[in-house]
Formats: sequence, structure tokens, C-alpha cells
Amino acid sequence: MAIEIERKYLLAGDGWRGLVTATQLLRQGYLTAGSGVTVRIRTVDDRVGYITIKSGGSALARAEFEYEVPIADARQMLGYVRGAQIEKRRHHLDLPGGDWVVDEFQGRHAGLLIAEVELESPTGKLDLPDWLGAEVTGDPQYYNSSLAMLVGGEI
Amino acid sequence: MAIEIERKYLLAGDGWRGLVTATQLLRQGYLTAGSGVTVRIRTVDDRVGYITIKSGGSALARAEFEYEVPIADARQMLGYVRGAQIEKRRHHLDLPGGDWVVDEFQGRHAGLLIAEVELESPTGKLDLPDWLGAEVTGDPQYYNSSLAMLVGGEI
Repeated sequence: MAIEIERKYLLAGDGWRGLVTATQLLRQGYLTAGSGVTVRIRTVDDRVGYITIKSGGSALARAEFEYEVPIADARQMLGYVRGAQIEKRRHHLDLPGGDWVVDEFQGRHAGLLIAEVELESPTGKLDLPDWLGAEVTGDPQYYNSSLAMLVGGEI
Repeated sequence: MAIEIERKYLLAGDGWRGLVTATQLLRQGYLTAGSGVTVRIRTVDDRVGYITIKSGGSALARAEFEYEVPIADARQMLGYVRGAQIEKRRHHLDLPGGDWVVDEFQGRHAGLLIAEVELESPTGKLDLPDWLGAEVTGDPQYYNSSLAMLVGGEI
């Protein structure tokens, strides 16, 4: 179990593109979601699978349990998700202050870009690059679980 | 991933007690449940933890994905379940035809006994011992996920 402390931002510029060190294709969906616990199935580059359970609680710091599962299992479990799958390119950035990524959404959310940083402590001080836009930490409409439900959901 | 083919029965006698080869204490609860996919957290003898995902579909044969997880994780995730936890003693029986168990429920379901047999094929022929009562395979009121929700649920 880990405590996940993350902050999320919209983007106001392209300055991050020069900082990309690696890009992965993520597909994910939710077996349950809402204000409480979420259960997420994810594949990375259609090569590795994960199941991730996140507690409810503060958006800034949630308990997170993540387990690797066989890719064939993950592919099949993605067929059981509520709502729809999300597909996004995750760009890892070379930036100080934490683990920075930019998620570039595909498909029906194409055009949406969200930067996330995982911090080591909720009070850690952060130098914010000038290409960041509005902070959306804790804004439910930008939860990936909400984005999965937005269109064609069958909750 | 496994296909779980099981049949369930109420009990009409005590003849099974002489067949017990081992007994475990199971605690379990559900992160999501209902007519579709279920996500179950279970501890066995407070020593081993599992997360189990079962697809919807026929009650007799469902896809089942089970992963062992650290016991400390499982204990913490049991705090996130919807409804309540179930506690039961699972008695393993020495009987032919499949893996036979009798679940002896504790706590608020004390007195309830359910026999289950896991078969190798849905059409396998089964010799039924005379201490079995009515078959309840596929009866939603005897799903463990339903029993978890029966009292004090907060769905």
C-alpha cells in the first residue's frame, strides 16, 4: 500500500513537449467508481496489466493498492468496466519536484491534456512551470473515473 | 483466469461433519457487487489475503480472477467494503466429484450453513450425499455478496 499525493493541472502551453523522456499508451476502465473506493483496470502498452484500488478520502492523498496482473486477465477484465474505457498517451517528463507526467487523451476525449505530479509529501513546495494552466486537483470532472463515465456510461 | 463452476446447497443433516479434513476462518467483503461484476476482498485465517474479480453471467459458470495480496493490504481494504463483512468457517470435505466445502457462517448470519462443490465441467454428473438439502445455485439471496449487504448495508 502506498499513499498517493498528487496535484493536477490543465495546460496553458506546449513547453512540456521538450521535456518528454518516455511515452506509454494506457488503456483503463473502472469496475467501480464514485465518491468512495475505486477499482481500476489498466494496461500499459498492451504489455503489462494492473489492478488498482484507491480509497476514498481527500483528493490530494488517497491510499492506493496496485497489483500487477497477467496482461490477458487485464484485457478480459477491461471488458467488464462500467462506463467506457479511457485511452491516453502518458508522457513522462524530466522535471524536478516529483514524478511529472502529461496525459494526452485519445478517442472521445481527444484534445484534453492534463499534467499530474506525484509529490513525496502533501506540503512539499513545488516550482510550477509556466506552461501549466489552472490547477484541477480534486475537481471531480477531471477524475479519470469521471471521464470514463461521461459518454456512453451505463451506471 | 479460471472458470468457476459451482453448485450450492442448503443442508438437511449433520453427516458432513465426519468428512471434514481442514477448516479455515474466512473474512470477506465486497468493493462492488450486484448483477454484474463483483470485486471481493478476502482474508484466510488472517494470514493470507486475496482480491477476486468475478464476471457477471451465468451463476453456474463465471469467469474468476484471483490474486494473492499482502495480508496488511487485505485487512486495510476490508475497511472499504460496501455493506458489511462476512465471517465464516470453511470446512473442506473428503468427498468425490469435485472440491466440496461447507461454509458455516458466523456473526449476524450464525446458523446458516451452505455446501458448495466446485465442478470440473458444468455438465459433470454428481452423486449427492443425503445430508444435502435444497439446491440454491443461482439464488441471489444466497450469494455471499447479497449476505454481505443484508444488514447494515450502505449501498
